[in-house]
Amino acid sequence: MALRVAIAGLGTVGAGVLKLLHQQAELLEERCGRRVMVAAVSARDRSRDRGVDLRGVRWYADATALAADPEIDIVVELIGGADGVARTLTEAALAAGKHVVTANKALLAVHGAALARLAEGKRAVLAYEAAVAGGIPIVKALREGLAANRVARVYGILNGTCNYILTTMREGRREFAEVLAEAQKLGYAELDPATDVDGIDAAHKLAILAALAYGSEVDFAGVHTEGIRHISALDIDYAGELGFRIKLIGHARMTEHGLEQRVTPVMVPLDSPIAHTEGVFNAVVVEGDFVGTALFQGRGAGAGPTASAVVADIIDIARGRQPVTFSVPADRLRAIPAAPMARHRGAYYIRLMVVDRPGVIADVTACLRDEQVSLESMLQRGRAPGESVPVVLTTHDTEEAAMRRALERIERLNSVIEPPRMIRIEA
Amino acid sequence: MALRVAIAGLGTVGAGVLKLLHQQAELLEERCGRRVMVAAVSARDRSRDRGVDLRGVRWYADATALAADPEIDIVVELIGGADGVARTLTEAALAAGKHVVTANKALLAVHGAALARLAEGKRAVLAYEAAVAGGIPIVKALREGLAANRVARVYGILNGTCNYILTTMREGRREFAEVLAEAQKLGYAELDPATDVDGIDAAHKLAILAALAYGSEVDFAGVHTEGIRHISALDIDYAGELGFRIKLIGHARMTEHGLEQRVTPVMVPLDSPIAHTEGVFNAVVVEGDFVGTALFQGRGAGAGPTASAVVADIIDIARGRQPVTFSVPADRLRAIPAAPMARHRGAYYIRLMVVDRPGVIADVTACLRDEQVSLESMLQRGRAPGESVPVVLTTHDTEEAAMRRALERIERLNSVIEPPRMIRIEA
Repeated sequence: MALRVAIAGLGTVGAGVLKLLHQQAELLEERCGRRVMVAAVSARDRSRDRGVDLRGVRWYADATALAADPEIDIVVELIGGADGVARTLTEAALAAGKHVVTANKALLAVHGAALARLAEGKRAVLAYEAAVAGGIPIVKALREGLAANRVARVYGILNGTCNYILTTMREGRREFAEVLAEAQKLGYAELDPATDVDGIDAAHKLAILAALAYGSEVDFAGVHTEGIRHISALDIDYAGELGFRIKLIGHARMTEHGLEQRVTPVMVPLDSPIAHTEGVFNAVVVEGDFVGTALFQGRGAGAGPTASAVVADIIDIARGRQPVTFSVPADRLRAIPAAPMARHRGAYYIRLMVVDRPGVIADVTACLRDEQVSLESMLQRGRAPGESVPVVLTTHDTEEAAMRRALERIERLNSVIEPPRMIRIEA
Repeated sequence: MALRVAIAGLGTVGAGVLKLLHQQAELLEERCGRRVMVAAVSARDRSRDRGVDLRGVRWYADATALAADPEIDIVVELIGGADGVARTLTEAALAAGKHVVTANKALLAVHGAALARLAEGKRAVLAYEAAVAGGIPIVKALREGLAANRVARVYGILNGTCNYILTTMREGRREFAEVLAEAQKLGYAELDPATDVDGIDAAHKLAILAALAYGSEVDFAGVHTEGIRHISALDIDYAGELGFRIKLIGHARMTEHGLEQRVTPVMVPLDSPIAHTEGVFNAVVVEGDFVGTALFQGRGAGAGPTASAVVADIIDIARGRQPVTFSVPADRLRAIPAAPMARHRGAYYIRLMVVDRPGVIADVTACLRDEQVSLESMLQRGRAPGESVPVVLTTHDTEEAAMRRALERIERLNSVIEPPRMIRIEA
């Protein structure tokens, strides 16, 4: 008996899924032991050519109505957004006992635990491989392949737009605004880039990874999120000189203060497994107590990779699998308190613009000493007496609260003429 | 109801599995929804301390007898070897309807298709994540996570011992024999190193990966296999100069002549995703038509990573999954003819030792011309008239048969005083 799929949302990804299901029909039938057919679709614009013959496929103007169609086994939700139609449709479909496959990271990040309870209560599958890191099967890896491990930390490059911008800035020694504008022209960045460059998209994905790694309820609100707008070509240059690359990293680890989840630009050492993940690629590193360090790298977005992940979920369902939504049954997901960022411990890169005159470094280092922040290195290239010059400091591991207090002191110094720039250094 | 596991073979990996099952008992119960208990074990030496209390666990001197124990759900086979007890036990356990989890690459590589048919006929699971690339969940990735793709090629560093030796040779500019002896002392290489350094272990793993990627019967006999004994420090040096790293790579791709499977030392460009996989790490790259290039990297051996993979399979079974053994049901696995290595097309690195006198290069290049092999670069450093000097050539893509004919001609030249060294260059 064929597996009947409905696709809600026929944008780039939806068209990619249609194309894959059409092009690999034979392969899929062989791998699933049954035919996968597109029974219905829903999209606003009925007239647009999606490159696939949709005659004979039921068309719904209202996506939510797909949930009531008895001739559908799986709803593929590709509308997007944490609420609105995407949420209504997902809830209705699961409530009707239909399986839902989605690429919607915002929906999972905000409503993941509730949707998992709904799905499992109905013995329906809620699958979302495409929601994190595009074509990389990292959801499956955490939920199944590495499930025997306690995860020390999981981190990675989760937003291809930011990684593309940072790579291009470094390679061309160019500034953020210019590269962003170019990326928008090339279609690599949205016209409203906030979701990407402010780290929100990466935070959605990180919250999902953390839930999988720690068997916890997805806690998007608990993610400390900073974007890359303040990263300058100068800091990227210094990073290189110090043996680092600047990457927007999502990072989750369990600490004595709770679950630390953060999305921030960080300096990663050049010998780190993800330092060389460049351009639009994504990468995720999982550190488990038995497996050690495992790295997964691939394309994090785009029609092809996303369709690959969506259809992998469909194949799983076709083969009769009933995976748990996260790593443990939904009713056993734990609410783990978020570790306050003030309790974060790590090393820091600080870049100051100071007036080049005697005593400045003594003043700055006194501020650090007063907050018990231990200096690891100091760099002041060239001289320009009386002019503004950059000074770069790196610290040993310190608590973020102390670092922030030291920075407030430093900012108040007369010879410091711009707010200090701070970038965390990843071990 | 608890899932009752029997472990056959309590060497390093067996002890690692025992340790994991003991240490993570609570985590596993949470993730599986049921307890996983070790009900029986089999090993030769009953007195050895494996660090885990085995009182209350049934002990079998004859591993095969585990298959007849009605109080066992899963047999974990960690004995090793393509035949003998490992095979007898696996067949008997599957025939009795028990699930089998194994780390035995030789068994799968030689008898994979037959065992898959036996298992699926009995609705038993035959799982072998640990057989390929240790802790990296690459079997699951190919069978499930990337199952929507047609695979253009799959390749990787599949033997940690060889990768450790090649890395150490390069870093210390040392010769193979010396580094091997040291690796043996450190326990990184077996006293009988043939399985590793002659490429057999990698060939077992490659044959399994190819079967997963192409839905074909495992065809170990069809793998063209060369080891790393003939790699010299000089060639590693030249590789670096030309922008390559020498790696022992297992590589499978579908060609017009059939399925090409080869394990050979190759030169990979420094910007290749696996050029920087060093030491005992393994890495696998999958190129799919929708996903693009995906990389998986991690520890390829050792008690911890292997136990992680073995227990991932146990978790899958505990969660009630009945995966297909390969990518398609066993009765649909295709027998695909092996592409003869003579039909391989690619670029080549050739290193000759020649007498430094006028006309030598002309003679050598004439041999290449006569076989239609097109030269890409030639390198002869320094002069030593009348003495033996190395000459390095790289070619454009050419058919291996032509390359071999040209090498035979070159070897017959009077001024060529050693058999030419040939290393394939990977695109």
